[in-house]
Amino acid sequence: MKVGLIGVTGHTGYVLRGIGKDQDSRIVGIATGSVGEKIAKRKDLQEATAGAPVYADYRKMLDELQPDIVAVACYFNDHGRITIEALQRGCHVFVEKPLALTIDELERVKKVYAASGRHLAAMFGLRYQPWFLTAWESVQAGAIGQIRLMNAQKSYKLGQREAFYKKRATYGGTLPWVGSHAIDWLHWFSGERFCSVYAAHSRRDNRDHGELEATALAHFTLTNQVFASVTVDYLRPDQAPTHDDDRLRLVGTAGIMEISGNKVFLLKDGGVQELPLLPAEEIFLDFLQQAKGEGKCRVTAEQSFYITEAALRARQSADEERVVAFP
Amino acid sequence: MKVGLIGVTGHTGYVLRGIGKDQDSRIVGIATGSVGEKIAKRKDLQEATAGAPVYADYRKMLDELQPDIVAVACYFNDHGRITIEALQRGCHVFVEKPLALTIDELERVKKVYAASGRHLAAMFGLRYQPWFLTAWESVQAGAIGQIRLMNAQKSYKLGQREAFYKKRATYGGTLPWVGSHAIDWLHWFSGERFCSVYAAHSRRDNRDHGELEATALAHFTLTNQVFASVTVDYLRPDQAPTHDDDRLRLVGTAGIMEISGNKVFLLKDGGVQELPLLPAEEIFLDFLQQAKGEGKCRVTAEQSFYITEAALRARQSADEERVVAFP
Repeated sequence: MKVGLIGVTGHTGYVLRGIGKDQDSRIVGIATGSVGEKIAKRKDLQEATAGAPVYADYRKMLDELQPDIVAVACYFNDHGRITIEALQRGCHVFVEKPLALTIDELERVKKVYAASGRHLAAMFGLRYQPWFLTAWESVQAGAIGQIRLMNAQKSYKLGQREAFYKKRATYGGTLPWVGSHAIDWLHWFSGERFCSVYAAHSRRDNRDHGELEATALAHFTLTNQVFASVTVDYLRPDQAPTHDDDRLRLVGTAGIMEISGNKVFLLKDGGVQELPLLPAEEIFLDFLQQAKGEGKCRVTAEQSFYITEAALRARQSADEERVVAFP
Repeated sequence: MKVGLIGVTGHTGYVLRGIGKDQDSRIVGIATGSVGEKIAKRKDLQEATAGAPVYADYRKMLDELQPDIVAVACYFNDHGRITIEALQRGCHVFVEKPLALTIDELERVKKVYAASGRHLAAMFGLRYQPWFLTAWESVQAGAIGQIRLMNAQKSYKLGQREAFYKKRATYGGTLPWVGSHAIDWLHWFSGERFCSVYAAHSRRDNRDHGELEATALAHFTLTNQVFASVTVDYLRPDQAPTHDDDRLRLVGTAGIMEISGNKVFLLKDGGVQELPLLPAEEIFLDFLQQAKGEGKCRVTAEQSFYITEAALRARQSADEERVVAFP
């Protein structure tokens, strides 16, 4: 598989790690995706893709190299447009989330995707961490019965972020950027569909990060009267031992499962059991294999669209201070 | 202080433990508060109050014994009415939460209280546990800066509960009964006022508990764009090591404080520190001392009313599936 990389901003590491495990694939070219992106600053990328030509214009790269797969990871407002262009040129697309910043743009991507016959997955790479895989497999096997209630947490260090994070127009908002991972867990673990969302977010105490929301909280009502909270913050101290503090609590009819501190705990019957972890997997390798016709990626296109929609509706709820129903 | 006990249902243990530490006070009488309560079943109470007369009619007890303080802990729909009667007879009132099951009844209690010149506190006894006292003192001392986001959890074993839990009319709902503790923490720790609430609750999988909600989730917006989630469930496995799994996460501008597993953790600067615990205190002893003019109870009457209101508005939100604003 010939892989073209567009953008040097998001989780390009997924692409490098995944392709490193597939002898049949290689990065054939790199291009900036957004005005303002600096490839020169990403020496790691250049080293990892030594020999691959660098393009200032990704369209030129697509036309000249005709990659089988395009990985898109630029400023967030350009994900949707570039995804459409790549699909229209016949490429499979592996794209950073959120894959669109408005519902309208998302609908355009869905339409082009449906006509393309190509594969698409958004970078919900956290699913592939050992603790999420372990918990998910265990829940699917019935360890906690039916899920009734979910509490998801994303807590990040803010640090000092690039300028594009400080504008809603280029960043999209904290619920789509950080929150969408947690929103993905809700649907992925429970299999329930979203009925409505009520959310709030605040830019206070964002340490000169303009329009970036430092805190957010969302309340989802899912099918079968399943409820879920998503709490998001950028207030994790900069000196904390890890960048993030991801957590998920799943309350079921036959037990309670928790992911915390990169471990999985199952409370069932008389005590809490720490589950032995499954090995990590690579999201981009999973996608590559699907593109080669050798399986199905854990992150489906339908899920990629659906979670983007859910995150955008959560943002809308917070912006408009009202409950937003899903159609 | 002469203490009269009305009801044998709620946290009467607070009264017994508190009075045991005050040589100046004693229980002078016990009465049932609600039709259906069985004093005969509470041998522990009878032993602890040996010699105190038992009344079938609490009004008769109030008139004959003229207690200085009345502790009310019967079926939840009778809290408000009995509180009013006791205040009107000149008693201080220590009452199980929720102290009313409707906003109208709450307003009546507030009015009688205001005219009474007596003291009142609801049984928010969890505040007096070492972990809550420790976290609260630390937060008030500025350990985490300004609170921006809060996540509170109440998880209980359901077991097999008395019949009155199975009817909304006598139980009042899971958000007022279980959730009110967590709602109390939000206001008590942050000092913020409630602006609005959005909540949901479900009776599914309540194991033949009629109208009792087995799960609930509430989203509060407080002043200064502080947000808070309250998750409540009765799905803790019956064989779990403890009855409850109370947690509170407080995200501040200068650190994150967590109460979990009866411990307190402070994430600040480079690492997580477990705080040494302050000693437990007794809520009823605190109230007794206030009644004697020797201090101020940590749980004020204003807070008791306010948290009851917040819990009832959360229940209303869940019942009506809409955001409810605070006046």
